[in-house]
Amino acid sequence: MTTVCAHVLCEFGGCDCRVLDDLALIKKAMYDAAAAAKVTVLNGYFHRFSPAGVTGLLSIAESHISVHTWPEAGYAAVDIFTCGDHATPQLAARVLADALRAKSVKIVDMKRGVPLGPDAFGVEIRTRDASLTRACEATVS
Amino acid sequence: MTTVCAHVLCEFGGCDCRVLDDLALIKKAMYDAAAAAKVTVLNGYFHRFSPAGVTGLLSIAESHISVHTWPEAGYAAVDIFTCGDHATPQLAARVLADALRAKSVKIVDMKRGVPLGPDAFGVEIRTRDASLTRACEATVS
Repeated sequence: MTTVCAHVLCEFGGCDCRVLDDLALIKKAMYDAAAAAKVTVLNGYFHRFSPAGVTGLLSIAESHISVHTWPEAGYAAVDIFTCGDHATPQLAARVLADALRAKSVKIVDMKRGVPLGPDAFGVEIRTRDASLTRACEATVS
Repeated sequence: MTTVCAHVLCEFGGCDCRVLDDLALIKKAMYDAAAAAKVTVLNGYFHRFSPAGVTGLLSIAESHISVHTWPEAGYAAVDIFTCGDHATPQLAARVLADALRAKSVKIVDMKRGVPLGPDAFGVEIRTRDASLTRACEATVS
């Protein structure tokens, strides 16, 4: 099996502050995102902080999906890490950006586990924001 | 509270293949890493795949720590994502590199949640491998 995986790191800004503090909504959005990404969920854990903020972690057969939120800042950090060639992590990013009502979406696309030589692995990094930002803005109500 | 967080992404190569398939050892190493990073563990989930490989996810008050392993390739992908100024994620990376007996360690240091303007957040990225690799090689038995 190849070690090369996709890791999509998302910075969501201008999100709906009530959504970012709503554990049930974030939980549903993460399971919806997993379905969109065509991954298999092994386990989910969700926690709401006091006074505000939610953490969600999905362990998936393909690696993991995480969401951490700062309602007071309208910010969420989202990671979608998928191995195998059947997963569609970009679709998960879009589902989550829509659910959290992000006005700004900055993406770092990484390849993890890229063989560099005997016993060494590295990453490939690409950043972008245009296409998904437009898509998200189009769906913000 | 600031949104700026540290995200340390590690590519471990040349790891001990037996260690990478040992759920109990990886679980212990992750809790040791959390202690080294001075973070608070909220929940842990660990899974061993058939025929090989382990996934471990720690939900921490400061965000998360993840380990995904490919024993057949000697590769592990490790993420340590910590918010707040009290955490020391680099120490967690060192604990895990030692525990997994990594011969090669490539690190991407990221800052997440960096304010870019109204409703927008970005990342800062720095890669390195020298210092930690030497530290790891010194401890490989």
